[in-house]
Amino acid sequence: MKVGYLGPKGTFSYEICKNSYGEEIEKIPYKTIKETILELQNDEVSEVIVPIENSLQGCVTETIDTLIENENLKIVEERILKINQNLMAKEKYNFEDIQEVYSHPQALAQCRNYLQNNLKNATIIETPSTALSAKEVSKKEFSACICNLECLSEYNLKLLEANIQDNSLNETKFWKLSKLEKDITDANVITMLFSTKHKPGALYNALKIFNDNGLNLTKIESRPAKTKLGEYYFLVDIEINNKSYEKPLEELKDVVGFYRILGKYKKSNET
Amino acid sequence: MKVGYLGPKGTFSYEICKNSYGEEIEKIPYKTIKETILELQNDEVSEVIVPIENSLQGCVTETIDTLIENENLKIVEERILKINQNLMAKEKYNFEDIQEVYSHPQALAQCRNYLQNNLKNATIIETPSTALSAKEVSKKEFSACICNLECLSEYNLKLLEANIQDNSLNETKFWKLSKLEKDITDANVITMLFSTKHKPGALYNALKIFNDNGLNLTKIESRPAKTKLGEYYFLVDIEINNKSYEKPLEELKDVVGFYRILGKYKKSNET
Repeated sequence: MKVGYLGPKGTFSYEICKNSYGEEIEKIPYKTIKETILELQNDEVSEVIVPIENSLQGCVTETIDTLIENENLKIVEERILKINQNLMAKEKYNFEDIQEVYSHPQALAQCRNYLQNNLKNATIIETPSTALSAKEVSKKEFSACICNLECLSEYNLKLLEANIQDNSLNETKFWKLSKLEKDITDANVITMLFSTKHKPGALYNALKIFNDNGLNLTKIESRPAKTKLGEYYFLVDIEINNKSYEKPLEELKDVVGFYRILGKYKKSNET
Repeated sequence: MKVGYLGPKGTFSYEICKNSYGEEIEKIPYKTIKETILELQNDEVSEVIVPIENSLQGCVTETIDTLIENENLKIVEERILKINQNLMAKEKYNFEDIQEVYSHPQALAQCRNYLQNNLKNATIIETPSTALSAKEVSKKEFSACICNLECLSEYNLKLLEANIQDNSLNETKFWKLSKLEKDITDANVITMLFSTKHKPGALYNALKIFNDNGLNLTKIESRPAKTKLGEYYFLVDIEINNKSYEKPLEELKDVVGFYRILGKYKKSNET
């Protein structure tokens, strides 16, 4: 068995991957979230770990949009990781000497106020992952990166400041994806994608079906349908617990354009 | 009167600003969306133009999150602009010679496939606006930027390729914000922010009030409440047309944690 993750070594996805699979499982790093998911679609790996939502920045749109475009993939597990972002560099530079700051757009966004207050004049450089910024910065003078503490030893860097995120309640939710649907006996949530028909009350009528059948909606995310402004796909999490959801799904067919179950799995309680 | 926009000259926000105000109005460029909105909050300008949503990339989270944190600002107008992204540089370089590509994260995301297919090995550098990437690139060898066609002459650049966005249906919605609520007689939409109480059916019960009062929900966006994963603010657009919405707002008080009207304005029909 081979599993894929948003690499290189030292990303938060890698941390989940290490905790989730034994030593003997081959772990393959990919350069972007999109590539990670596409290599699962192409059967290069059996499962992948990707970030889906952060408590400060919201949904990871690259993950959702790639899942929307690839129909055969299933969420089989959810994991939550407490995130600490850290500023590192090749040497112990003073802040005023740092000319460039490298990181993943999500990590940069989580530290937006910190950067504004401490490194206002540095150029911000986007990298496809946090650990890749560490790898880059390990070869550059007067540059810093924002990443997981694991990168300190992995890339032989010096810590300039720890825990620099704008809010201490920084958690990221990850999904384990697979092509094979697993029979998870204690599954208590389904994640579903649907579009609405273009008429008044369309979204309300879809949500009414869940409510009338005693199914609680715990999350709704809208993503552009990429047709025109104002047309959306909706991604919802529905608590199923032990309830039947076959009948509501039948009813749903009449009110939505299409729907797709992205997974039936157990919600993570770790925080 | 002074108005602010996400600058410098040549951004899409600048284009809306030019079309929206006469020559005699002083237009002040700011470096980030957040700064633009905060300078309105600080009374440095009377109105500002900011992007709020793109048909390919979805909501501009920096705009929403800054609006959530600043309570006195009102949406007074909506404008929609067709967006074409273009690749430019100081000279007519071959693609394989381009080492860096500069642009705003939204523009980069709109051209993600194009970049992957044509400039896979170039370093991606995030700038606070599209036009700022043009300004930077006008001083750099072997670098390219992605921006509005207006930047060609503004920064004396050469066009490498026009219309490089991944999908031709690329439109951005902008809001004009003010501290003064305007009495817009043909207003047909309200945008509202609310949180839900933490109990089953909470979001459904809020949406039910609008539906039961004949008010159609045309958009819902969830943003993290920045407390913990799974807690959200909801931003909704409600078509009011000539209907009264005072009674439903009264009812809403009983089911939501808080609510705030962000504006009552006329929907743009331009596409």
